[in-house]
Amino acid sequence: MAEPAMDMNSAAGGRRGRSGGGGAARRAARSAVSLETAKFIERNIPNLEVLNEEALAIIETNAETVLAEIGVNFADNPAALERWRDAGAEIEGERVRIPRGLARQLCATAPSAFTQHARNPARNVDIGGRNLVLAPVYGPPFVRSASGGRRYATMEDFRNFVKLGYMSKWLHHSGGTVCEPTDVAVNKRHLDMLHAHMTLSDKPYMGSVTEPVRAEDSVEMSKLLFGADFVDQNTVMTSLININSPLTFDSTMMGALEVYARAGQACIISPFIVGGAMAPTTVAGTLTQVLAEVLAGVAYSQLVRPGAPVIMGAFVTSIDMNSGAPTFGTPEAALITYGAGQLARRLGLPYRSGGSFCGSKLPDAQAAYEAANSLNMAMLAGVNFMLHSCGWLEGGLVSSYEKFVMDADQLGALHHIAKGVDMSENGQAMDALREVGPGGHFLGCAHTQANFKDAFWRSDLLDYKPFETWDEEGARDTQTLASLRVTKMLGDYQQPSLDPAVNEALADYVARRKDSEPDAFG
Amino acid sequence: MAEPAMDMNSAAGGRRGRSGGGGAARRAARSAVSLETAKFIERNIPNLEVLNEEALAIIETNAETVLAEIGVNFADNPAALERWRDAGAEIEGERVRIPRGLARQLCATAPSAFTQHARNPARNVDIGGRNLVLAPVYGPPFVRSASGGRRYATMEDFRNFVKLGYMSKWLHHSGGTVCEPTDVAVNKRHLDMLHAHMTLSDKPYMGSVTEPVRAEDSVEMSKLLFGADFVDQNTVMTSLININSPLTFDSTMMGALEVYARAGQACIISPFIVGGAMAPTTVAGTLTQVLAEVLAGVAYSQLVRPGAPVIMGAFVTSIDMNSGAPTFGTPEAALITYGAGQLARRLGLPYRSGGSFCGSKLPDAQAAYEAANSLNMAMLAGVNFMLHSCGWLEGGLVSSYEKFVMDADQLGALHHIAKGVDMSENGQAMDALREVGPGGHFLGCAHTQANFKDAFWRSDLLDYKPFETWDEEGARDTQTLASLRVTKMLGDYQQPSLDPAVNEALADYVARRKDSEPDAFG
Repeated sequence: MAEPAMDMNSAAGGRRGRSGGGGAARRAARSAVSLETAKFIERNIPNLEVLNEEALAIIETNAETVLAEIGVNFADNPAALERWRDAGAEIEGERVRIPRGLARQLCATAPSAFTQHARNPARNVDIGGRNLVLAPVYGPPFVRSASGGRRYATMEDFRNFVKLGYMSKWLHHSGGTVCEPTDVAVNKRHLDMLHAHMTLSDKPYMGSVTEPVRAEDSVEMSKLLFGADFVDQNTVMTSLININSPLTFDSTMMGALEVYARAGQACIISPFIVGGAMAPTTVAGTLTQVLAEVLAGVAYSQLVRPGAPVIMGAFVTSIDMNSGAPTFGTPEAALITYGAGQLARRLGLPYRSGGSFCGSKLPDAQAAYEAANSLNMAMLAGVNFMLHSCGWLEGGLVSSYEKFVMDADQLGALHHIAKGVDMSENGQAMDALREVGPGGHFLGCAHTQANFKDAFWRSDLLDYKPFETWDEEGARDTQTLASLRVTKMLGDYQQPSLDPAVNEALADYVARRKDSEPDAFG
Repeated sequence: MAEPAMDMNSAAGGRRGRSGGGGAARRAARSAVSLETAKFIERNIPNLEVLNEEALAIIETNAETVLAEIGVNFADNPAALERWRDAGAEIEGERVRIPRGLARQLCATAPSAFTQHARNPARNVDIGGRNLVLAPVYGPPFVRSASGGRRYATMEDFRNFVKLGYMSKWLHHSGGTVCEPTDVAVNKRHLDMLHAHMTLSDKPYMGSVTEPVRAEDSVEMSKLLFGADFVDQNTVMTSLININSPLTFDSTMMGALEVYARAGQACIISPFIVGGAMAPTTVAGTLTQVLAEVLAGVAYSQLVRPGAPVIMGAFVTSIDMNSGAPTFGTPEAALITYGAGQLARRLGLPYRSGGSFCGSKLPDAQAAYEAANSLNMAMLAGVNFMLHSCGWLEGGLVSSYEKFVMDADQLGALHHIAKGVDMSENGQAMDALREVGPGGHFLGCAHTQANFKDAFWRSDLLDYKPFETWDEEGARDTQTLASLRVTKMLGDYQQPSLDPAVNEALADYVARRKDSEPDAFG
């Protein structure tokens, strides 16, 4: 297997400088602490399964009925209709009716797990199986910070969020559109976004999907970063293909999917559902639609290129029937997320769902309740790839600086829950129980001394101090603590090293492509 | 079965007045809306089980080893030692060593489920099986409100929290020491507390445990409320008996347990563990200790009275090894809570754990993350009785007015998750999928119209409005919204009706007992 064309020696970052220089080495050693990145989560606890065998069979049968009798639309995409016709589907206008069993059969060539490579191999992620890979918020046009309030996102914000993601220990993935940089032309911003992920972080990233040509740019830039041969032979991007629920596949998203599938790059194929609006109000009805849509979308990816890596997605919220607003962290969404995980595992596909979802406008208690509900649910639902795992605010309209670090801190707890219960002799701790006995205390015993450093997950953000200390220090709430942490992290940030030739090639590509067409906005 | 000696006709409350009076009836009708109380949760989803059969067997064997080889202390309690000796245990000083299998065998007479009666039979709760009963915070000496800050709790606060509990739809139980009324003498406050639960609410309540004589007062006052025969034949209190972990049973708590067991009243027998201090740092070691302590405590209750209703408790947090502070909502506590649930079910006992736990000083994002982690965990761990399910702040030092209503609102989500997935024809929603088809929307379809009212859980507190509306209304955070809700609820409160003769008897009892001894403080 070819190695990516870059300097991998300095995984811990540090600015380029005289190698072996004492000051630089000390700076690198200091920075190495804050640049620790946890390995993706490998679960040692079971998934929660809310559907029994009978319920699963009913939903699977109903999904086949949807595909065979109702069908799905592939809009403005004659080539897709042709592929479906050749595969045995019935075509009527843009409607594709898929005979029972055909979609599932086509899905069988999709791998059940795959590795997404990062330019720093220590950051590679294995997506599938019992693993969970965490990626940040995706898509918001606004940002919010404690000091700056709510405003349109800029490219500077984008770079800041990539830096925060790079420095967040529990985040395995740099993500994609961490916010929408509205100050750059809509037909060019993908170039700056990719460039930021490639140069400001060494974690894996996502490609552009807003036009097929932007997906092609993503592949080309990845070839500059990893080497063309490496990209031909390996997955270096996982990109987000949303389905226009209900049951519609538009040509823009399908065009991007086609580019990535042909290039052997991974896509999340994901219904985007506000229950009650884009799907029925019921859990079982929504699961039926989710499965039908994923079956059609994944089958299509395999028609484009058998074996192309894909993830079954399920982005599901419910609607507030009073205001029409989407709601997050709700029990109905939880049941759908648990059930969709079971369907994904039966289909043999990696599963994407969950996130730091909330409807709150502020990183307050509402935001935290809703996000914690969703994060815990995603962990227990067997999610393999969690987009939006930190930073989501206001129904996805806002990337929040403070909530980014608040959620990212909570992701540490998920890592520790996933470990399950250590049943080794040390884990059983009978020595400690014998040593201490009735009425004693364990703080000083040998077992505690040997174990206390790694025994408990510890927040890097939340306040555990006694009331009096906390009060003397200014009685700060979580948002205030998070704001300080954002400032500290951005101040401490050091760019990971990159081969200057690669750096230059990427900058040239971005400049050349930007010059090739006029700016477009809107 | 005897009926309680009180007027049960007006479950929805309303002040006593001319029966049938138009104004009173209208007031009752209005108040009936806010006085809706959900039935206790009946789970239709599985529990999360983190321990396999082998791990469970190891922990159970180790717990028997602890009881047989290390033993437990029953301090200052010669009668208890005598009971244990008669049962076949080995006594050495205060140490009781229990032969393998004996404690588990004694536990077999404890019921696997029981009904706790409320003075309003519509509020009775069934504790055990797949049910979950929710009760409020217990024990804090301080209160906090947005307007008043943090201060010592008073009897007025206590009454306010009982009123809030009475009016909280998702709360099934009035609880016990919802805060510690520090302005009433320590030897008399239990009388005022019981009186408040009995007269300001019609939900089930807990008895006093701080001295055996106060447990006797609790039984006597319950006889005035329910009738002596009814109390003899039924469980009308569930009280909290903490074990002095590690492995110590003090005579005060055991004295209260003895009173309640003899009276056929229920007790939660609960290790109180800050992991790393009162138990080993490991999950398996802590579970071993929890099981050993519960086996000994429950067995003892059955020595006092075979068949006495008991609940296996597990109050477990971990310690922050930097500051020594207890921490809440942590992954290690979650694993212990899941595992202890499995042990309780194998022991055939109802299970108490979980709560709205947090270490935060404010009802902010930290408080909500930690509480949501704990509430979700308790739901999925199979907890049957959740004390502290709302209002807990600052590691249990503070009852928070705002957090009480914030948590109580979230409890609604637990009710909806527990419903599981409706697989009826209506639940499958194939009609909706057929009617809407690709590219349509579900808001207007017949299935949505028929289902939308009950389709989704809706918060009564959190803000789902669009940004602009929310901003115009003052950009309020969750604490601010909760503060308004507290004021509204206390303003709307109407006392549930009670037979004037019972009311008078209770007041007389309290006055007489208060006069019988001088005030004690501290």
